[in-house]
Amino acid sequence: MSSDNTETVTAAMLVIGDEILSGRTRDKNIGFIADYLTAIGINLEEVRIVPDDEDRIIAAVNALRTAHTYVFTTGGIGPTHDDITAEAVSKAFGLPCEFHSEALALLAAHYKSRNMEFTEARKRMARTPRGASLIDNPISIAPGFRIENVHVMAGVPVIMQKMMDAIAPTLKTGVKLQSATVDCPFGEGTIGGPLGDIQKDHPDTIIGSYPKFSDGSYSTQIVIRSRDNAAIEAARSDVEAMLAGLN
Amino acid sequence: MSSDNTETVTAAMLVIGDEILSGRTRDKNIGFIADYLTAIGINLEEVRIVPDDEDRIIAAVNALRTAHTYVFTTGGIGPTHDDITAEAVSKAFGLPCEFHSEALALLAAHYKSRNMEFTEARKRMARTPRGASLIDNPISIAPGFRIENVHVMAGVPVIMQKMMDAIAPTLKTGVKLQSATVDCPFGEGTIGGPLGDIQKDHPDTIIGSYPKFSDGSYSTQIVIRSRDNAAIEAARSDVEAMLAGLN
Repeated sequence: MSSDNTETVTAAMLVIGDEILSGRTRDKNIGFIADYLTAIGINLEEVRIVPDDEDRIIAAVNALRTAHTYVFTTGGIGPTHDDITAEAVSKAFGLPCEFHSEALALLAAHYKSRNMEFTEARKRMARTPRGASLIDNPISIAPGFRIENVHVMAGVPVIMQKMMDAIAPTLKTGVKLQSATVDCPFGEGTIGGPLGDIQKDHPDTIIGSYPKFSDGSYSTQIVIRSRDNAAIEAARSDVEAMLAGLN
Repeated sequence: MSSDNTETVTAAMLVIGDEILSGRTRDKNIGFIADYLTAIGINLEEVRIVPDDEDRIIAAVNALRTAHTYVFTTGGIGPTHDDITAEAVSKAFGLPCEFHSEALALLAAHYKSRNMEFTEARKRMARTPRGASLIDNPISIAPGFRIENVHVMAGVPVIMQKMMDAIAPTLKTGVKLQSATVDCPFGEGTIGGPLGDIQKDHPDTIIGSYPKFSDGSYSTQIVIRSRDNAAIEAARSDVEAMLAGLN
């Protein structure tokens, strides 16, 4: 993350998905990205939500990318026919949408390791505008991508949040966001209430929780982010005390 | 609510407020309005979030009101200097922003009944574009307003939700939304979990809860909305069973 406090860095967010506009799915990404960008010194100046409609996505991407330093999109990069974000963003830039060799290799290895077929539908998730660089997805492998100043991310909140962590070091901004991780043996249903209270007590931090399910039981990774290491340590101390009280 | 199933009725929503873009406040209105409009047969096609900036509000209002049957805005109609929605919407229509006599009378009576001073700041809440009609606010009196196809509402979710109920009968749409109210002697903290489960079990309804605090204790009004009376009655039955189990 390069530091340049003399320049105002602005951003817009584009949420893509019929399901948000119909009410079927509640957006959980706007608030996270608003917090995240504020914490790293980038001004979020506009958000738009558009349906899975190529013309509307193209129009919004072009309006936003020319007006702001950065654009962050969420949604529409999955394997089904209504996931049209890669195609639409390519068209917005006048670039061909094609298979990205690195993405194909990542996904091929991933499905092979799980003895799952690398179907045509899954291959769709390896398509990007020509010249895009990938955004790492440590959770379900299918990557996001960056083309010029536009960052295309998954709509699933836990994946989007990890993608933001991958993107952050590449952004022009003032102060680097630090993070600390606490492994927690309980599921989110158990810790959600007290963790919310800890977040309220530590407004200078962004506390995220990432649920895991393995060997038949739930656990959670708690990530505390802040520009201020002392704020992280204070929150971490409260999280650890909360977890100790549950044991 | 007039019924015209041959016409597609579209809407856009405009969320106004720095605090949403900075992450300080989580928007809770987009999901509600998405659900609400879907339920009454209006297609929500776009949402924008903009800061408390006159030029940006004007540009967004004009882009959205010419592209959609209806526009619904939330936020920026309170008494402080950064509440500039009425002024900006007036300018978007090229209309003077002036005191609305009916709104002034409502607010004057309200503050008089509470022995509170009707200050200049509070009088700001009576300003609308010339020719606007008021949107009733049964909770805190300060009204919203409608000018042509643009509906200007409060940002506080419980007030916005009551304003939507006031607006709904005036909208062109297909099927009328019905509602039933259940008075609940418990606060939202007590019923929130089980009420969420009931909402999941009754996807054809929109279940809202409106907290009240009086005489030192919390209670809640639970409102069940649906196009389908049988769905309302099924949800009401589960709500009443849930409440009986808590007594």
